[in-house]
Amino acid sequence: MDQPSAPRRITIVDVARHAEVSTTAVSKVLNNAYGASPAMQAKVRKAIAELGYRPHAAARGMRGQTYTIGVMLPDIRNPFFPDILDGMEEFLEGTNYQVLHGAGCNGEAAEARVTEAMIDRSMDGLVLIAPISSRSHLEHVARTVPTVVIGRHGQSAFYDTVADDDLTGAALIVDHLAGLGHRRIAHIEHLETDPARIAEMPNAIRAEGYRRAMLANDLADEINIVSTTYTQAGGYRGAQQLLARGQRPTAIFAGADIVAMGVLEALAEAGLSVPGDISVAGYDNTTFASFGPISLTTVDQAGHQIGVNAARLLLDRIAERNKPSAQIKLSPTLVVRRSTAPPP
Amino acid sequence: MDQPSAPRRITIVDVARHAEVSTTAVSKVLNNAYGASPAMQAKVRKAIAELGYRPHAAARGMRGQTYTIGVMLPDIRNPFFPDILDGMEEFLEGTNYQVLHGAGCNGEAAEARVTEAMIDRSMDGLVLIAPISSRSHLEHVARTVPTVVIGRHGQSAFYDTVADDDLTGAALIVDHLAGLGHRRIAHIEHLETDPARIAEMPNAIRAEGYRRAMLANDLADEINIVSTTYTQAGGYRGAQQLLARGQRPTAIFAGADIVAMGVLEALAEAGLSVPGDISVAGYDNTTFASFGPISLTTVDQAGHQIGVNAARLLLDRIAERNKPSAQIKLSPTLVVRRSTAPPP
Repeated sequence: MDQPSAPRRITIVDVARHAEVSTTAVSKVLNNAYGASPAMQAKVRKAIAELGYRPHAAARGMRGQTYTIGVMLPDIRNPFFPDILDGMEEFLEGTNYQVLHGAGCNGEAAEARVTEAMIDRSMDGLVLIAPISSRSHLEHVARTVPTVVIGRHGQSAFYDTVADDDLTGAALIVDHLAGLGHRRIAHIEHLETDPARIAEMPNAIRAEGYRRAMLANDLADEINIVSTTYTQAGGYRGAQQLLARGQRPTAIFAGADIVAMGVLEALAEAGLSVPGDISVAGYDNTTFASFGPISLTTVDQAGHQIGVNAARLLLDRIAERNKPSAQIKLSPTLVVRRSTAPPP
Repeated sequence: MDQPSAPRRITIVDVARHAEVSTTAVSKVLNNAYGASPAMQAKVRKAIAELGYRPHAAARGMRGQTYTIGVMLPDIRNPFFPDILDGMEEFLEGTNYQVLHGAGCNGEAAEARVTEAMIDRSMDGLVLIAPISSRSHLEHVARTVPTVVIGRHGQSAFYDTVADDDLTGAALIVDHLAGLGHRRIAHIEHLETDPARIAEMPNAIRAEGYRRAMLANDLADEINIVSTTYTQAGGYRGAQQLLARGQRPTAIFAGADIVAMGVLEALAEAGLSVPGDISVAGYDNTTFASFGPISLTTVDQAGHQIGVNAARLLLDRIAERNKPSAQIKLSPTLVVRRSTAPPP
């Protein structure tokens, strides 16, 4: 068996030698320059393919572009984020851009490490999904590299944003449940204590939307929130806490579908039926919500469209670094399925 | 509001000016060199923090390391891959390594784009999860950058491998179902036609394990395979095809939990109960399988341990480029839950 040798990158010299042409000819073909005949192009492209040659990225793009886009996700287990990525990929199809992801893990230190790695790797632009970092850190990132922020409310002159109207989305669920006759409607939120983030994070805005909609439905006395995290484990713990509190809610509005997943698990363990004993609603309209045996009522915030818009804004900003910042807010819609019904 | 200015990277000169010290002093602090007093260190570190300075990656590591690891996943919707990533993160915790991911999408062209982007971005090492690319392409990648391949069977002198014993895993499911009294046990596989890949891909080995175990259980006449993909949609279509074929199976062994998810959906739509009418088993022991309301019998291939081992092998290979290649094969275990029972 061959022994591995020290790595050596295939160079333009190897390609020229293999194709039996000059290095200048190879350069011309690589740069789509005039003066490379079709026969020459064929020869060089064949040699490139056979040797597996890749022009070094620094040389490949014009103006030093690397054609890589970094996407920071909070969590790769949440089935909502793939919808956003699908939308981005759809918009980027046919371009030379390659998307690479990293997990920010809902932590400022981890987010800083991911964004720094992406900047150090010279990515052309970043898309940050629901980052928790401070506004000043986000602006620092955005001054260094074209950046689009998804999910955060508020605006900055330095980055573009695409967000869902989370206030309206939360109201869609509360109005739906109240319309079915529910009064004891509880909410599981992702804990947020930082005042600046309370004004901007989608989870905090959803909790605020829940409060406002309860007030609007004359249910101020029934406001009942538990604070955990937007994870399956957070939903499980949240539901257990709600069941342990005095009077049991007749409906639980989980702040995300992944949270509802944990809620369903806790209710099943407690021997409660859905929606017979308790109605459950989520947020995001993920594949999990539409999964037949679950059939979760939820809010569709059009993750695919969020991704399409984010990719478009980012390419615009890469092309024109100093354009005025744009804020896109998408309107959510209610998706009613079998997990909600009138209270028992 | 401030207008965004053209991007400019903070340099060592800015840090020196801000800290009111020489650039040499900044360098000393950055390199942990002798001759930087504690007071000087404090001054420089304060300026670094205030300006958000990051030493350029090329200069940051010794020997040109960038402390980034690229992980290529086939698909970010499959809940098995986060288990592998969690294991990698656990092993890498406390190191300076940052993991970035890209989706290979089960396509040779997409896999080539992802691996090229990671190599062009100078990542220190790659982990490729169940790549479908040819052996020669994988070896080309591995000769360029330290590489660990997860899931593929077979060995190479150029990369290390971590795989599950898929032959044994498939037999665990078939033996379990046969032991319950099932004879009409069907299998949904991820279609594989390339002869080289049939010998190496985990999906092909699982299908072969199913065949062998059916033979060993004297059920050769009952072998019944549909070929779709390892996705939720693939499971849905596969189950529909099985239901449309003559005699209905009493048990379906889906090649992956995500496939079983689609199977459960199709069976629910067809009005069939699980396990009352049909038993269903998956493979991977994902969070979906352990989710209470689903409770899927499956094979645990220890994704977390796969990730730990892959990270360890990769760091070893980054440290010693020409070490002999290692092959780790992990033994799977059966996890029996409520989705399997004796046939009706």
